[in-house]
Amino acid sequence: MTSPSNPTSPSPPPFQGPGDAPGDGADLGLLSPVRAGSPAESATGDRAFLQALLDAEAALTRAQAGLGLAPGEAARAVTAAADAAHFDVRDLALRASAGGNPVIPLVADLTAAVGDAAGPWVHRGATSQDIMDTAAMLVAHRTLGHLLADLERTAVALAALAATHRDTAMPGRTLTQHAVPTTFGLKAAGWRALALDARRRLASVREALPVQLGGAAGTLAAFAADGGGEAALRLPSLLAEETGLAEPPLPWHTLRTPVADLAAALAHTAGSLGKLAADVLALTRTETAEVAEGAGGGSSAMPHKANPVRATLVASAARQLPALAGVLFGALAAEDERPAGAWHAEWQTLREALRLTGGAARCAAELAEGLRVRPARMRENLALTGGRLVSERAALVLSRYVGRARAGALVTEAAARSASEQAPFVDVLRECGELADVPQEVWADLAEPARHTGCAPALVDRALAHGPPAPSPTAPRSEETP
Amino acid sequence: MTSPSNPTSPSPPPFQGPGDAPGDGADLGLLSPVRAGSPAESATGDRAFLQALLDAEAALTRAQAGLGLAPGEAARAVTAAADAAHFDVRDLALRASAGGNPVIPLVADLTAAVGDAAGPWVHRGATSQDIMDTAAMLVAHRTLGHLLADLERTAVALAALAATHRDTAMPGRTLTQHAVPTTFGLKAAGWRALALDARRRLASVREALPVQLGGAAGTLAAFAADGGGEAALRLPSLLAEETGLAEPPLPWHTLRTPVADLAAALAHTAGSLGKLAADVLALTRTETAEVAEGAGGGSSAMPHKANPVRATLVASAARQLPALAGVLFGALAAEDERPAGAWHAEWQTLREALRLTGGAARCAAELAEGLRVRPARMRENLALTGGRLVSERAALVLSRYVGRARAGALVTEAAARSASEQAPFVDVLRECGELADVPQEVWADLAEPARHTGCAPALVDRALAHGPPAPSPTAPRSEETP
Amino acid sequence: MTSPSNPTSPSPPPFQGPGDAPGDGADLGLLSPVRAGSPAESATGDRAFLQALLDAEAALTRAQAGLGLAPGEAARAVTAAADAAHFDVRDLALRASAGGNPVIPLVADLTAAVGDAAGPWVHRGATSQDIMDTAAMLVAHRTLGHLLADLERTAVALAALAATHRDTAMPGRTLTQHAVPTTFGLKAAGWRALALDARRRLASVREALPVQLGGAAGTLAAFAADGGGEAALRLPSLLAEETGLAEPPLPWHTLRTPVADLAAALAHTAGSLGKLAADVLALTRTETAEVAEGAGGGSSAMPHKANPVRATLVASAARQLPALAGVLFGALAAEDERPAGAWHAEWQTLREALRLTGGAARCAAELAEGLRVRPARMRENLALTGGRLVSERAALVLSRYVGRARAGALVTEAAARSASEQAPFVDVLRECGELADVPQEVWADLAEPARHTGCAPALVDRALAHGPPAPSPTAPRSEETP
Amino acid sequence: MTSPSNPTSPSPPPFQGPGDAPGDGADLGLLSPVRAGSPAESATGDRAFLQALLDAEAALTRAQAGLGLAPGEAARAVTAAADAAHFDVRDLALRASAGGNPVIPLVADLTAAVGDAAGPWVHRGATSQDIMDTAAMLVAHRTLGHLLADLERTAVALAALAATHRDTAMPGRTLTQHAVPTTFGLKAAGWRALALDARRRLASVREALPVQLGGAAGTLAAFAADGGGEAALRLPSLLAEETGLAEPPLPWHTLRTPVADLAAALAHTAGSLGKLAADVLALTRTETAEVAEGAGGGSSAMPHKANPVRATLVASAARQLPALAGVLFGALAAEDERPAGAWHAEWQTLREALRLTGGAARCAAELAEGLRVRPARMRENLALTGGRLVSERAALVLSRYVGRARAGALVTEAAARSASEQAPFVDVLRECGELADVPQEVWADLAEPARHTGCAPALVDRALAHGPPAPSPTAPRSEETP
Repeated sequence: MTSPSNPTSPSPPPFQGPGDAPGDGADLGLLSPVRAGSPAESATGDRAFLQALLDAEAALTRAQAGLGLAPGEAARAVTAAADAAHFDVRDLALRASAGGNPVIPLVADLTAAVGDAAGPWVHRGATSQDIMDTAAMLVAHRTLGHLLADLERTAVALAALAATHRDTAMPGRTLTQHAVPTTFGLKAAGWRALALDARRRLASVREALPVQLGGAAGTLAAFAADGGGEAALRLPSLLAEETGLAEPPLPWHTLRTPVADLAAALAHTAGSLGKLAADVLALTRTETAEVAEGAGGGSSAMPHKANPVRATLVASAARQLPALAGVLFGALAAEDERPAGAWHAEWQTLREALRLTGGAARCAAELAEGLRVRPARMRENLALTGGRLVSERAALVLSRYVGRARAGALVTEAAARSASEQAPFVDVLRECGELADVPQEVWADLAEPARHTGCAPALVDRALAHGPPAPSPTAPRSEETP
Repeated sequence: MTSPSNPTSPSPPPFQGPGDAPGDGADLGLLSPVRAGSPAESATGDRAFLQALLDAEAALTRAQAGLGLAPGEAARAVTAAADAAHFDVRDLALRASAGGNPVIPLVADLTAAVGDAAGPWVHRGATSQDIMDTAAMLVAHRTLGHLLADLERTAVALAALAATHRDTAMPGRTLTQHAVPTTFGLKAAGWRALALDARRRLASVREALPVQLGGAAGTLAAFAADGGGEAALRLPSLLAEETGLAEPPLPWHTLRTPVADLAAALAHTAGSLGKLAADVLALTRTETAEVAEGAGGGSSAMPHKANPVRATLVASAARQLPALAGVLFGALAAEDERPAGAWHAEWQTLREALRLTGGAARCAAELAEGLRVRPARMRENLALTGGRLVSERAALVLSRYVGRARAGALVTEAAARSASEQAPFVDVLRECGELADVPQEVWADLAEPARHTGCAPALVDRALAHGPPAPSPTAPRSEETP
Repeated sequence: MTSPSNPTSPSPPPFQGPGDAPGDGADLGLLSPVRAGSPAESATGDRAFLQALLDAEAALTRAQAGLGLAPGEAARAVTAAADAAHFDVRDLALRASAGGNPVIPLVADLTAAVGDAAGPWVHRGATSQDIMDTAAMLVAHRTLGHLLADLERTAVALAALAATHRDTAMPGRTLTQHAVPTTFGLKAAGWRALALDARRRLASVREALPVQLGGAAGTLAAFAADGGGEAALRLPSLLAEETGLAEPPLPWHTLRTPVADLAAALAHTAGSLGKLAADVLALTRTETAEVAEGAGGGSSAMPHKANPVRATLVASAARQLPALAGVLFGALAAEDERPAGAWHAEWQTLREALRLTGGAARCAAELAEGLRVRPARMRENLALTGGRLVSERAALVLSRYVGRARAGALVTEAAARSASEQAPFVDVLRECGELADVPQEVWADLAEPARHTGCAPALVDRALAHGPPAPSPTAPRSEETP
Repeated sequence: MTSPSNPTSPSPPPFQGPGDAPGDGADLGLLSPVRAGSPAESATGDRAFLQALLDAEAALTRAQAGLGLAPGEAARAVTAAADAAHFDVRDLALRASAGGNPVIPLVADLTAAVGDAAGPWVHRGATSQDIMDTAAMLVAHRTLGHLLADLERTAVALAALAATHRDTAMPGRTLTQHAVPTTFGLKAAGWRALALDARRRLASVREALPVQLGGAAGTLAAFAADGGGEAALRLPSLLAEETGLAEPPLPWHTLRTPVADLAAALAHTAGSLGKLAADVLALTRTETAEVAEGAGGGSSAMPHKANPVRATLVASAARQLPALAGVLFGALAAEDERPAGAWHAEWQTLREALRLTGGAARCAAELAEGLRVRPARMRENLALTGGRLVSERAALVLSRYVGRARAGALVTEAAARSASEQAPFVDVLRECGELADVPQEVWADLAEPARHTGCAPALVDRALAHGPPAPSPTAPRSEETP
């Protein structure tokens, strides 16, 4: 075997096995397990996008027919021909390179497919961007349908967790350290609130996804032939009806608010689910072990591993969305009536954003529905600091006896001694002569961290009063009763 | 003189002039002219942020006093002391490093400032994040006030441009090439629509900016002393009243929807203004010269230059916002009850996002109000392609005489000949024998690109019917009457 | 037709045409024309990646056989079975979801394929990440081979342009405005310098791409069985030989320098080609028209259009790479011995980065080789400002007669008058009484902008003296002799 | 108190305290504790940048004097005047807005400062970008000096940790779960390897940081007056000597390789330190507690807290750099001879990137030098899984007795039982009848996880053999002997 070939040479390294670069370049999900097999993946594949392009063309002809601008027969012919199964996606992809977008070859193939009579009515008056953008909005609309359903599943499962564990005490953690007690229910209620925030934003964006129709430069000029300015102005509205999308206030070839709104809502969603994942990953660590995924993933090397795979995959998506959203936000600054590059950079980016977020939502729903909660372990962990995580509370309570400043000093000193001597914090404190008058019940109360969850249970109630209800109570999905 | 010093050595290169690294590291705007001197800059400076921190502390004590949890006298004392002028920003910044945030030293200084009686009521029950987040929301609220005003100025100026130039024909351009005619009014109406979209999103986000109040881990535990759970639960509402911010549904220490919403709206705004800037830059190019900034910027080398500086600066901000928004979206995935890094990465990022967008809005308002429009140059440019930018129209019109396929072929051939022979497109076409029956008035119509702006004027009317009105008509700000 | 369905419902909008979401989610390049059909696309497809995974497994068994840790027969059996054609990519992708990576199901299938005797030697001692990372480096190595070849093509074509147009004067432009004259040769030499910078960085990164081998947590423990610590330590070196990749200093499961280096070099490359694209797009604008792509792209609406499609597609890739590189840089901060999310976010991101940059390099080579240059138009454009783009020169020259301050004032005034009166700049200047003594030849010199290209030709010579030579001179590819 | 003011109004919310937006907008580090007070902060402040601008102007005049293009007296006068202390940074920042960069007003002020004789030689022949870019490179050069020193400190401290803890066993963790044993020495050696990788890249970039000199459009035309083309071509070399920077192959106004290289090396550095931080944060968690920062940070609410503040601040920087680098990579695609926006977006972005990374390097050095290591806790944690983290090892060893497949099955079953019954893994295994022949010493070996660290110690030796040496051995900085 030889050393690496000359780096400036295009030849790949030598192999005894099969040659390099087999296959056709297809992405079938091998490198993106978060979305492989998800509804969002199939809803955003090239075949689904092709179908949306065809749906857009067909709807346009029907809309024109509705205004008397095209024969009904042509509309029926185009609609009948607009079936992705009859077109060659890969061939269209290759031919797209010449003109820079796939609509140009598609119009040629669709025109051929509908026959001579209907041919002239295919894509009539439209520009490629009318079709690409309308198709992208259709794909987004369909994919968001799946996403909203998975967010709802997630929220419902989290509501049940929040209700079940309303009072389950656990350590609250800040900057990696035990801080003060909280409840697992409040944590779950927070995850749910984020899922609902995301769902609300996505639903609102979805509602507003518009058709694109403006013709070559957004003036509707080619639809306005024969003095038909009035008809042309009504055409976007009919196209909206035909597609189920919204009518935009203006052609938006370079007014990319709809894409930016999608970017924002998708990044928000992936990040919100990323919070759930980050917490599950932290709580699942071997040393912490307060939760576990319902079905942990295996390892190719270690038989004992049960990995938090759902959370890992959600986290992998959450890391990608801010960057993808950034590309889409960047495309807002689009020059002229069609920019040379900014628009083209949107297509693959939006697709990836949709399918990654959709995959993350699916994984999150599975994660939330299967999560195993371990209240006993939470109780054990509450004791880990020798009770020091009630230090804030202790300072507050003891200030009634010795004043705020003195209470703070005593508590700080006791916390340090408790840590260095591995002694229970409350025991160290009560040895302090200045505190001799503090009644026993105060010490007993401080010695039980689980009593100091503050308003956590009440906040759970408040949170659950909004949004979709949790399912009727069932057996708790924790491993133990809370 | 010697070659560069050893790169692994920390010593700077030798200089005959003054030594390196003078000064205190202050950023006074030298490298960010887009926001230097803007209201958004001063509203987001360290002194303004410090004031907001103090406002948050004072409002918290007042809110507690409102519920009987603190003496009214203490609230008055804290409020009186909460003046940034009495604190040393740089000293606080330096002391912030030890604990990782500036609230810790600030609480010490504020406690010292209010005296022994009020001291115990400073920051009582709160955690640093309560104050940092509330202050950030106050700063955002104040800065967005300036931003909304500048977006309104921008939209009003653009509405006037759209109305004045409703019918001013110019080339529509796609992928850098003349496409079909449009009107400058439609372009301006599109810019305005984006500014209004951005304004609507910002206003809605601003309305919802919440106070933060949860205590150490978001349970309100330290406010719930003495069995005061009810009072603690009411405290966020009172804090909201005291600050003018909204009450959040839950403490949001790690539920970062408000920050993500800000990120989205700011990136949307900067990108939307970036579209205006991109167009102005394209139209200002020496060869195109259809618009010019009211007061172009000079050059340190070339006396004749009048640079589109407002548009350049807006563009510089639009390039930075997607990245900053990405950092903020990335901070959604925050582990535990306070993340170790994600939260800390928000502060400077959000400040930069606010001030860059605020600066861009100011520049955009100046740009829109001062923009000079040159209808005569637009007319000249319409003629540049020998009239070929009516090719789509010609194909449509001529299809009535020779069918769609034949019309397309003739037009394509004529466009090619017109280009290669530098001959007027319509003249080439009308020489074609097949088209001998086409009436004179059709040719005359095609020879006048300005007649083929489609629905552009009607779309301007439609767009201007929504949103704030343009100012009452004044003398057009174009150099010539349109 | 009805309005949009309930946004919270997952049901897609109603259609008369075919149902939604057909197909399998495959990405065949429809939305990414910049790379559709490119060698980089097929070198990075799932099938190519699968082959690389198999190559890595086979090479590992061979390396172990080379050290006597496995039977030679097993190595031959694994090598023979390691042919992607015998595995089902989509099935592997779907099964990858359970464990979070595709190696787990692949090891099962490969073990089954090699038979009982060789089975135990498949993946022996390795962890999934050993195989995923080695495969990713193999894919990168192979893809970069194509990339380097296309960058070389690009650089060679640009060298020829630089040599041919060494002295072809054109306007230098700053902040969109004519500044001072330059030559097209200097512009092309700059583009070439960037392509060579990128090529150097990529070649250097490619040379260092390492195998991954560390076992479950990077300790090589499972290879060190039977006291074979020495053999285990030698194994990475043998794996490097078997694959043609480099040997790393340490297992790099969470020391992601190789991925970060790839990110940097790919982002640099895409950005460098993006500069070429940005310039071509600017110079191609209808009003400027100093260059044109060899074969412009057509339009679905406008028969006359010849769009700069190569440049547009390169620009679309350049907009995506910074974001993708950001995700990869972000993955450096990977916790533990294998992070839960950061690693998984690399896979698809790196693939997209490789294929987008590879596609951009192919487009750039075609662009550079086909670019048509129009020196006559450059000369015409030099005259557009009435000669004001020699203002800096004029100030310099005239300072000899009236001093620097006075010369500056006169030139500034003359530039303003020349602009407002549309009068030739030099004519305005020479009317000035103070300049009566300036000799005729000075005025004649100033009146000819093309004479004032400074050191541009000499800089071209200097630049071309480095890097690969231009091809032997052929007929210039400009439309006219320069 | 009233509800929030009208969101569309610019008025801030009502306050009883001081009014809004006090101060001048200065950023003094309050929101960026990672860099507040660091050498990188002062080296990148506006005053330092202003000094670099002045250094560049002075060096240019000296270089011209060196070639006889300017009087030596003028060079001395400009050098003497080039002291930032004599200029008003804020005033320059405000005046920079008109022309879009601070060099224009600075040249005016500097010209005034040097007097009538030297005035004409200030900035002679140069353009603003020559000075801005050269100054940015000077600032980068100086800041990188501090950065390299802090990376060296970090690497030295980490080498000592690696040597001291070469054999200190601890759990290796993958996807949050205990995987197989490793040593803390290998972990520290990996952190050090990353710091050295980063240092090497930064040093190499620093070495190549070039001066900028090209004049208005990069042709050196204004330096070539009086037929001085030869002198003009030599000028960049002299400017390089005067500044200690490198001579570039071409003027690089729009060939932004130096900035992209800085972006890459800074993002690499921040990410590499981010890995150290991520590990320290994970190992510091209350439940894990294997390391602690030397001086943890306090809390404003909880007296017992000792937060990992250095790691937190490093992590906060690591989250921002990928985004900032992305803006800089994006600026590569710069149109024309000076882009309208891309260049302007670099300034603040590069400054932030430098100071954040510099601050992170300082924090990392403090972190590494102060880190407390707890070998006893590592040993305890190794036992947490009941010994299941030797499952891979057990499967390997037992395969000698019952074959690989059977060994795998037994180990998997035993791992499951061990987990569900909370029984020691090895005890469960040895109860298995099939394994009755396995000798006692095998079981004893498997029962001691710390014996199974594979090649970790040898890898530490290998890693430490490269790079700067660790300091001579001193008392270990762990809390216990390893």
